[in-house]
Amino acid sequence: MGADAMYGPAVTFLGVPAARLEDPATYAGAAAVVVGAPFDGGTSHRPGCRFGPAAIRTTDYLPHDGRRPHLALGLDPLAELSVVDVGDVTMPPGDIEGSLEALQRAVGTVAATGAMPVVLGGDHTIALPDATAVADHVGRGRVSVVHFDAHADTGDTQFGSLYGHGTPMRRLIESGAVRGDRFLQIGLRGYWPGPETLDWMAAQHMRSYEMTEIGRRGLDACLDEAFAIALDDCDAVFLSVDVDVVDPGLAPGTGTPEPGGFSTRELLDAVRRVAMELPLAGMDVVEVSPPYDSAEVTAYLANRVVLEALAGVAWRRRRPADRRSPESPLLQDRPGA
Amino acid sequence: MGADAMYGPAVTFLGVPAARLEDPATYAGAAAVVVGAPFDGGTSHRPGCRFGPAAIRTTDYLPHDGRRPHLALGLDPLAELSVVDVGDVTMPPGDIEGSLEALQRAVGTVAATGAMPVVLGGDHTIALPDATAVADHVGRGRVSVVHFDAHADTGDTQFGSLYGHGTPMRRLIESGAVRGDRFLQIGLRGYWPGPETLDWMAAQHMRSYEMTEIGRRGLDACLDEAFAIALDDCDAVFLSVDVDVVDPGLAPGTGTPEPGGFSTRELLDAVRRVAMELPLAGMDVVEVSPPYDSAEVTAYLANRVVLEALAGVAWRRRRPADRRSPESPLLQDRPGA
Amino acid sequence: MGADAMYGPAVTFLGVPAARLEDPATYAGAAAVVVGAPFDGGTSHRPGCRFGPAAIRTTDYLPHDGRRPHLALGLDPLAELSVVDVGDVTMPPGDIEGSLEALQRAVGTVAATGAMPVVLGGDHTIALPDATAVADHVGRGRVSVVHFDAHADTGDTQFGSLYGHGTPMRRLIESGAVRGDRFLQIGLRGYWPGPETLDWMAAQHMRSYEMTEIGRRGLDACLDEAFAIALDDCDAVFLSVDVDVVDPGLAPGTGTPEPGGFSTRELLDAVRRVAMELPLAGMDVVEVSPPYDSAEVTAYLANRVVLEALAGVAWRRRRPADRRSPESPLLQDRPGA
Amino acid sequence: MGADAMYGPAVTFLGVPAARLEDPATYAGAAAVVVGAPFDGGTSHRPGCRFGPAAIRTTDYLPHDGRRPHLALGLDPLAELSVVDVGDVTMPPGDIEGSLEALQRAVGTVAATGAMPVVLGGDHTIALPDATAVADHVGRGRVSVVHFDAHADTGDTQFGSLYGHGTPMRRLIESGAVRGDRFLQIGLRGYWPGPETLDWMAAQHMRSYEMTEIGRRGLDACLDEAFAIALDDCDAVFLSVDVDVVDPGLAPGTGTPEPGGFSTRELLDAVRRVAMELPLAGMDVVEVSPPYDSAEVTAYLANRVVLEALAGVAWRRRRPADRRSPESPLLQDRPGA
Amino acid sequence: MGADAMYGPAVTFLGVPAARLEDPATYAGAAAVVVGAPFDGGTSHRPGCRFGPAAIRTTDYLPHDGRRPHLALGLDPLAELSVVDVGDVTMPPGDIEGSLEALQRAVGTVAATGAMPVVLGGDHTIALPDATAVADHVGRGRVSVVHFDAHADTGDTQFGSLYGHGTPMRRLIESGAVRGDRFLQIGLRGYWPGPETLDWMAAQHMRSYEMTEIGRRGLDACLDEAFAIALDDCDAVFLSVDVDVVDPGLAPGTGTPEPGGFSTRELLDAVRRVAMELPLAGMDVVEVSPPYDSAEVTAYLANRVVLEALAGVAWRRRRPADRRSPESPLLQDRPGA
Amino acid sequence: MGADAMYGPAVTFLGVPAARLEDPATYAGAAAVVVGAPFDGGTSHRPGCRFGPAAIRTTDYLPHDGRRPHLALGLDPLAELSVVDVGDVTMPPGDIEGSLEALQRAVGTVAATGAMPVVLGGDHTIALPDATAVADHVGRGRVSVVHFDAHADTGDTQFGSLYGHGTPMRRLIESGAVRGDRFLQIGLRGYWPGPETLDWMAAQHMRSYEMTEIGRRGLDACLDEAFAIALDDCDAVFLSVDVDVVDPGLAPGTGTPEPGGFSTRELLDAVRRVAMELPLAGMDVVEVSPPYDSAEVTAYLANRVVLEALAGVAWRRRRPADRRSPESPLLQDRPGA
Repeated sequence: MGADAMYGPAVTFLGVPAARLEDPATYAGAAAVVVGAPFDGGTSHRPGCRFGPAAIRTTDYLPHDGRRPHLALGLDPLAELSVVDVGDVTMPPGDIEGSLEALQRAVGTVAATGAMPVVLGGDHTIALPDATAVADHVGRGRVSVVHFDAHADTGDTQFGSLYGHGTPMRRLIESGAVRGDRFLQIGLRGYWPGPETLDWMAAQHMRSYEMTEIGRRGLDACLDEAFAIALDDCDAVFLSVDVDVVDPGLAPGTGTPEPGGFSTRELLDAVRRVAMELPLAGMDVVEVSPPYDSAEVTAYLANRVVLEALAGVAWRRRRPADRRSPESPLLQDRPGA
Repeated sequence: MGADAMYGPAVTFLGVPAARLEDPATYAGAAAVVVGAPFDGGTSHRPGCRFGPAAIRTTDYLPHDGRRPHLALGLDPLAELSVVDVGDVTMPPGDIEGSLEALQRAVGTVAATGAMPVVLGGDHTIALPDATAVADHVGRGRVSVVHFDAHADTGDTQFGSLYGHGTPMRRLIESGAVRGDRFLQIGLRGYWPGPETLDWMAAQHMRSYEMTEIGRRGLDACLDEAFAIALDDCDAVFLSVDVDVVDPGLAPGTGTPEPGGFSTRELLDAVRRVAMELPLAGMDVVEVSPPYDSAEVTAYLANRVVLEALAGVAWRRRRPADRRSPESPLLQDRPGA
Repeated sequence: MGADAMYGPAVTFLGVPAARLEDPATYAGAAAVVVGAPFDGGTSHRPGCRFGPAAIRTTDYLPHDGRRPHLALGLDPLAELSVVDVGDVTMPPGDIEGSLEALQRAVGTVAATGAMPVVLGGDHTIALPDATAVADHVGRGRVSVVHFDAHADTGDTQFGSLYGHGTPMRRLIESGAVRGDRFLQIGLRGYWPGPETLDWMAAQHMRSYEMTEIGRRGLDACLDEAFAIALDDCDAVFLSVDVDVVDPGLAPGTGTPEPGGFSTRELLDAVRRVAMELPLAGMDVVEVSPPYDSAEVTAYLANRVVLEALAGVAWRRRRPADRRSPESPLLQDRPGA
Repeated sequence: MGADAMYGPAVTFLGVPAARLEDPATYAGAAAVVVGAPFDGGTSHRPGCRFGPAAIRTTDYLPHDGRRPHLALGLDPLAELSVVDVGDVTMPPGDIEGSLEALQRAVGTVAATGAMPVVLGGDHTIALPDATAVADHVGRGRVSVVHFDAHADTGDTQFGSLYGHGTPMRRLIESGAVRGDRFLQIGLRGYWPGPETLDWMAAQHMRSYEMTEIGRRGLDACLDEAFAIALDDCDAVFLSVDVDVVDPGLAPGTGTPEPGGFSTRELLDAVRRVAMELPLAGMDVVEVSPPYDSAEVTAYLANRVVLEALAGVAWRRRRPADRRSPESPLLQDRPGA
Repeated sequence: MGADAMYGPAVTFLGVPAARLEDPATYAGAAAVVVGAPFDGGTSHRPGCRFGPAAIRTTDYLPHDGRRPHLALGLDPLAELSVVDVGDVTMPPGDIEGSLEALQRAVGTVAATGAMPVVLGGDHTIALPDATAVADHVGRGRVSVVHFDAHADTGDTQFGSLYGHGTPMRRLIESGAVRGDRFLQIGLRGYWPGPETLDWMAAQHMRSYEMTEIGRRGLDACLDEAFAIALDDCDAVFLSVDVDVVDPGLAPGTGTPEPGGFSTRELLDAVRRVAMELPLAGMDVVEVSPPYDSAEVTAYLANRVVLEALAGVAWRRRRPADRRSPESPLLQDRPGA
Repeated sequence: MGADAMYGPAVTFLGVPAARLEDPATYAGAAAVVVGAPFDGGTSHRPGCRFGPAAIRTTDYLPHDGRRPHLALGLDPLAELSVVDVGDVTMPPGDIEGSLEALQRAVGTVAATGAMPVVLGGDHTIALPDATAVADHVGRGRVSVVHFDAHADTGDTQFGSLYGHGTPMRRLIESGAVRGDRFLQIGLRGYWPGPETLDWMAAQHMRSYEMTEIGRRGLDACLDEAFAIALDDCDAVFLSVDVDVVDPGLAPGTGTPEPGGFSTRELLDAVRRVAMELPLAGMDVVEVSPPYDSAEVTAYLANRVVLEALAGVAWRRRRPADRRSPESPLLQDRPGA
C-alpha cells in the first residue's frame, strides 16, 4: 500500500499504484495524481461526504487492477496517463481552516510536478484550496474554472464563517486566484442565493447557466459558448464537478439535493467534452455522501466522472490521427470488421 | 405556533407564518394558503402519504425562514404572495367520507377569502373535495382542471366504494363541479383503466395525453394545446399534481408507481408554465409517500412543485414589465453585469 | 397453483393461469409461456437476481387477475395471447452447467409448441440456453438477436469458466446458434471489454450501438437501422433485455450497474417497437436483483418490459385495420368521443 | 389457488391448502383456519400493516410446502392440525366500520365450524371483531384474553371515533363480549394511556403487566399468574399478539414502536406456553408493517409467532404420552441416540 | 415557535413550550430546559448526529402536546417539571472550538437559573462543555459523572486536536471540572483505548465497568456500587448517555457502533434509576445519527432516555408518600381496582 | 498489498500484514492466517455472503493499523499472534465443487504450517473444506467441532446435490474427517430439519443444543458440558460460527434468518470462552450477507467474533500468571490504580 486513508482501509482509485505525497519519486512520470479530501466539516446540511473518497475510489464491479479501457474513446486512461493515488489528506471535520491548508499544500505539491491533481471530495469547500493551488502553479488569474453544480457556491459567509461549501467560489474570485469573468457555472437552479449575491456575481462578470436557459438552448450549445469563454486569454482550466448537478432522483447520495437536474448521461458527456476540448490542469469531484446513497448509484456516477475526465485528457494528449471519434460505430475500423 | 398537525410536530411550509382556519384574520391578505390533507385511507396499494404534508412542508436544506428567492424568475414567491399555512385538517384514515367533508369545508373556507388554496396530500382522493370547493367558489363548471398523473383516476368505484384515489375525477365531472371537456390529463400510461372507463372518459370529452403521444409531439406542444382548451370559456384553473406522473426511478416515494414517466425537470417546467400562463385558483400536490422514499428525493420534488407553482403565480401577478424571462441568462441585466 | 417456485410461494405472472411444463395440455393454445430462471450463479458481482422471477411476476399495484389492458395500444396482451406461466426451472446457484441444461430443455419444450418463451431471469448467463433453444426450434442461424444491455457480454471466459453472465453472447455465436452479423447490441457503455474482445466482436460482424453513438444519432434512428439488419435473411428474432441498459439511478436493483444509460421511457418504447415491428420468437428479461432495489422500482420496470413486449406481439398479430396507433390521442375514436 | 388476496398475488400461509370461506367443504376437518385481515385504516401513526398478511404468510426461507416440523416439540403443526387458509377479507382502509363487520362475519364463520381462526393483521383494530366473533361462538363472557402488547389499546375514542387500533380492548369489554377481569395484558410500557383510562381499566379489574413489573418478577412468573386467572371460570382463551410487544430494535416493522420491549425469544417462548397450557379458541397477530421492516426480520418473527402457537396447540391435542418436552436435549430418545 | 433550529424547522421536545435563551423570563420556573447541540464536527467516523436534536425532539407516535404520563411511575414529567426547550445552539461543524464555547455559554446560562440542562447531541465532544458548565455552577469537583457508553472517551488527542468525541472525559478531569475518582463509566467494551490511556484512567482513579464485569455481577449490582461512589462527597451528578452503550443491533443509528452492548430495556431502567436515586444537575444524550438509523428505532430510544430521566427526576422531587413503585402491578391501588 | 481480492479492492483484516498463500515466507511465524472464502453459490435462499470477507475485514471505525488492544483481556491479539491475511481464494459461485476444492487446498496449506486458519465466509458450505483440511492436518477423527448456528446443516442433499450450506456437517461426519460424537451444535431452533435427519444425527451421537434447552439450563452450563465432550479424547477443536445463531433482529445481514436467537453479547462471550478454554486449531465465520445488513451491524458483529476468538487464543497461549481475568474491574491492578 503506501497511501494513507483517513477512514477505512487504505485503497487506491480502482487499483492504480499507490504513491506517497512526501516521496515525489513515487509519482514521477504520472500525468494525473489522485488525492483524497475526506472532509465534510463545511457541509451546511446532510453530512457524509467524508466517505466520498473511499466510495469514489472503490465503487466498481470490474477488477481493481488499474486498467479501464474506455469503449467510446478506444483507450485506457489509467494506463496511458500513468495515474497514481497518494491517498487521503488528513482533514479533521472540526478544523476547517487547518484542513483546507493541508489540502492546499498537498494539491500544490502535486501541481508543482506538472501532474494533474484529481481531488476526490469531500464537500465543496475544498474547491477553494484545490483551485487556488492549481492557480498558484499555472499563474493566478490564468486558470478558467468550469463548474458543474446546482448551486453557485458564492455565498459571502456560512454560519458566520468565510469557509464552507456555500462560499468557495467567492473566496476564489476575491483572492484573485481565478478571474470572475472566466468562471463558468453550469446547472444552477432552485432558490438560492438571493439578489445581493447574484448582484455580486454579475459584478464579477461570472457566466452562470441556469437549468431553464440550458433547457431552452440545449446543453451542447451552452457548453460551446462556455468553452469559448474559458479558452479566451487563459492558460488552463480547472474543472469542479459537484454531483448534485445531476438530478437527486439519479444521484441521491449527496447533501443538498436540488430537483430538476442533469441526467447522468448529460454529465458524463459534458465532462468528457471538457477534458477533450479544454486544457485541464486540475479537477475535483465533490459532495458524494454514501450514507444517503442507494445501491451505490451516486458513487458509481462519481467514479465514472473521474474516468470520463481522465479518458478525455488521454484522448487530447494523443496525436489527432490516433484519436477515435466517440460517436462513431463502436466496432468500426477494428481489425476484422 | 397555531397550525395543528395530525402527525408529528406542528410546522409550516418552509417556515411561512402559521394561520388558523377558524380565525380568518390570521390569513387575511394572504394570496395563497397551505392546507395539509394527511389522508391515505383512499390508497389502493402502498400507503404512507398521510405523512406527505409534513414531508412536503419540511424537506429542504435551506433555512425554514419563509423566504425562497426563485433563481430563474427573479422573485420570492413566499414573500410576494404572503403565503401562510393553516396546518392539517384532521382526516382519520378509516373514515373516508367524513375526512373528505372536513377537507372540503377547509378548502372552501380558504377559497371564500379569494386566496388560492394549496393542498398538500395525502392520496388523490382529496382532489374531489379540493376542486369541488374551488369550483363552488369560482362557479360550478367554470373551472378547468389541469391534471398531471400517470393514472386517469376516473374509475367508477374502488373496493365497492364511490370514494378512493382511483375515482375522484369521475366524481368531479359527474357532480357537475367541473366540465369533462375542460379536464386536461397529462402523463397517463400503463394498463389501467379498461375500455369501459375509457369510453366514459371519451363521452365526457376529456382530453388525456398518454406518454406515447407526448413522446411524439413533445411536452410543450401538448401543453400549448391543453392550455388553449383550459382557457376556453372558463374562469379559472385548478391544478392537480400527482407525483407519480414522474418516473418512479426519480420519485420512488409514492404508492402506485408506473414506470416510463416524466423527468423531474419536465414536471417542474410544466408546473411553472401552468402557473405563469393560466389563472390558477387552487392546487393540490398528492401521493407523496415518505416510507417508500429514498434520501427524501420525492419529498424534495413535491416541495419544489409547490414552489414552482407559487413562483409562477407571483410572476403572473406582476406587471409585464417586471417579469423576468426564466430562460434568459441568469445574471443578465443585473446591476454591475 | 401448479407452477413450482424455486424460492418463495408459487405465483404466476400477474395472475395468468399456471401451467406445468411436463403437461403440454396445460399450455396448449398459449401464444406465450412464462418460464422462471431464478439463477444468479453466473453473476460476477452483486448477486440477488435469483429473486428476479418472483419480483417480475408479482410487482404491481393492480389486481393479479391475468388482465392488463394496454392504454396506448388499446388491447389486453395477457388475454389476447393467452399467456400462461409454467413456474421456475430448478437452477441451483452452485451448478452452472446443470442449471443451463435444465433451462435449455424447458425453453426448448415451450418453443417446440410454437409458443413464445418469455424467460424471467436470473442473470444474463441464461441468454445462452434461452436463445439456443429458440434457435434450435426456428433454425440455427435463422434467428436474429436484439440485445439491450450496458455490456457486450462477449467475454471469452469468466473466473476461468466458459459460462457466466459475461460470456453468453460469445458462446451463442461460437456455437452457430445465431449469426454474429445478425446480433444487434444497443446501449453499450463503460470500460469493458478490452480491445481483444472488441476485435473478436468486429470479426463476427456484430453491430454494437454504444451510448455515445445513440446520443448523437437518436435512439429511433439506431433502432431503424438495427431492425433492418435483423430482418435481413432471418426468420425470427430473439429479444434479450438486461435491465442494466437503463441508468442505474432509475433501475438500481441490478448487479453490475453502469451509469449513463437509457431512461425507462426509452427502454419501454424501444421494446414495444421491437415487438410491433419484428417477428419475435422468444425473449428474456434479466439481471433484476431485488436486494439492491429501492421501493421496487426496478422490478416494476422489468414487469412493464414484459408487458410492453407482449402488447407489441399482440398488436402485430392483429389485422392492420384493428391496430391502434400508440401515438394518437388516447380517447380519439372511442364511442362517444 | 382459490384464496383471494386483497393486495398482491394469492398465496397461502407457507403453502397450506387454500380454502374458500363461502365453501365450508374446503375447510372441513381443519383444526385451524388462517384469515387475512389486510387493514390499516385504524392505525394512528405509521401505516403499512395492510401488507402484513402477505408478509406473514410468505416470509420464510424454507419451501412453501405446508410442512413445518417443529424442532423443540417434535411435531409438525401444519400437518397435524390440518391448517388451511381462506385468504383475505376485503377491508377497504377508508371504511373502518364496514371492514370490521366483514371481518367479524368471516371469523364467525370459521369459529362456527369449531376450527380455530388464526387472523393475520392488519392493525390492532381487528381484535374487536376477532375476539367478538370467537366469544359469540364460545359464549359471551366465557373467553379469557391473553394480550401481548406495548400498549393497552383501551382508549375511549381515536380521532373522535369509537374504532381504531387504540380502542378495541375497551370496546370488547364494554360490549360484554369478554370480561375485564379475565383480560390479561403483558408487556405494557411507555407513556400512554393517561390516568383516566387507567382508572377505567382498574375498574374493569383488568390485569396489566407493565415491563418494569415483568423485569422484577420474571416473565415466567407473570405468565404463571396470568394463566391461572385466564383459566378461572372461563371456557376458552383468545390470544392477541401485537408484534410491538417486542423491542423495536428487534422488530422495527411496526407502526407505533415503543422501546424497551421483549426479546424475540421471550415472545416465542411465551406464545408457545400459551398454546401448550391454555385452551386456545382463536388468535390474531397484528401490526406488522413491511414498509418499515428491515431485511424482513419483523415478518419472520410474526410468521414464527403463528407457528409457535399452532405447534403448542398441536402438542396440547396430543395424548400426554406423546408429548415431547421442548426443553429436553434435542436428539434424546430418538432412534439410534 | 421561538426556539431556533440549526437544521430543519423549529420544533420543541415533544411539544413542550419554546423558550429563548436570551430571554430568561421564557424559562423562569422550568425545572428542566432542553438545549439542542447539533454538532458532529467531533465525530471520528460516521457523521450525522447533527440531526440528533431534531430526531430526539420529534420522534414519537403520540401527539406533540407536551404531555407524557409515565405508566410505571404514574406521573407526567413534562407537566410536573415544567420542561421548556430553548432550541439549538449554532454549532458549525467545521469550528469545533467556537462551537464548544457557544454551547458552554448556553448550558451555563440554563444552569445558572437552577434548572437542569438537558442537552441533546450531537457527538460526545459536547460532554466537555455540558459538564463543565454544570460544574461551574454547582462547584468544580463537586459533581460526579455517570457515563453510559461503549467507549471511555478518554483519549489524549484526536486527529491531533485536544477536542473530539474521543477525548472529552480526559479534558473534563484534567481541567478539574470533575474528579476522576467520581467518574463512573458503565458499558465499556471492545478494543479501545490502549494501555497508555488505561493507565492514565487508573491514575485518575476512575471506575469503569466493562461489559464482562457487568455480565458477571449483574447491572443492578454495578449500579448500586457506582451510585455509592457518586454520592460520596459530591453535591450533584451529571448524566451522560451515549446511545452506543446499547447494542448496535438495537440502536444502529450511531457513529461508532460496538457490538455486545446493553439491551434497550437495561438502558431505560438504568437511566430511570439514576434519576430516581441520584441528585441530577444536568444531562446529555449523544451520538444519535439519523442517517444510519432504521425505522427511527434509535431516535425513539433516545427520546425515551430523556423521558425516563425526566420522569425519575419528577418522581424524586415528590414526597415519598406520593411516589409510586414502578415495579408494582400497573393498576394496583387505582380508584376502582 | 499482495493479498488478492475476488470482489472489490485488496484489503487485509483490519490492516494486518498481507501474505501470499503461494509464498510461505510471507506467513512464516504467524500464529493465525486469515483466508477469504467469498462464496455464496451454496446458499439456499438470500445470497450476498460473497461480500462477507470484505465486510468482515474492513468494518470498523478504528484505524486499520493491525492493532486491536482487547479491553477485557488486556492484550492485543493481532500483535501477539502475528496475524496475517492471504486474501481471497477464487471461488466462482457457479462452480461449487471446484470452489470447495480450491478452498480446501488453501486451508490445508495454512494448517500445514501450524498456523490457525481463520476463514471468512461465504456461506456455510465452506465448513466442509475448512474443517476437513484442519482434520487432515491434526488427524482425522481427532478434531472436535464447536458449531454455533440456528441450523443443524446436516441435510442429506440440497437441490439434489451433496454440497450446499445445508449439508456440510453431514459430509464432514460421513467422510470420517470428524466424529459425530464430538460434534457440538449450539443455538439450533426453528422448523428444520425433519425427523429423518434428526434420526441420522442421533445415530451419529451428535450433541445439539436447541434454544429451548439453552433457555432452561443457561448458556454457560451448556457450554461447560459441551466443552467437556469436546476435550474428551480429541486433540484440537474447530470452531464454526454462523452469524445466524444470533437473533436476526440483531444481525439482519444473513441469508436464512431464524428468529429467537442469541444476543450478540452471548455470542461474543461464548466465542471468547471457546478460545480461552479449548485448543483451537481452526475456525470459520460464515453467512454474513452485506446486502441485507443494516448500518453494517452484522459485519461489525462478525468482525468482533474474529477478534474475540483471536484474543482468547492469545490469552490461552500466555503463561497463566500473565492472564488477566476478563471479569475483573477494568482498571484494577494497573499502574497508578
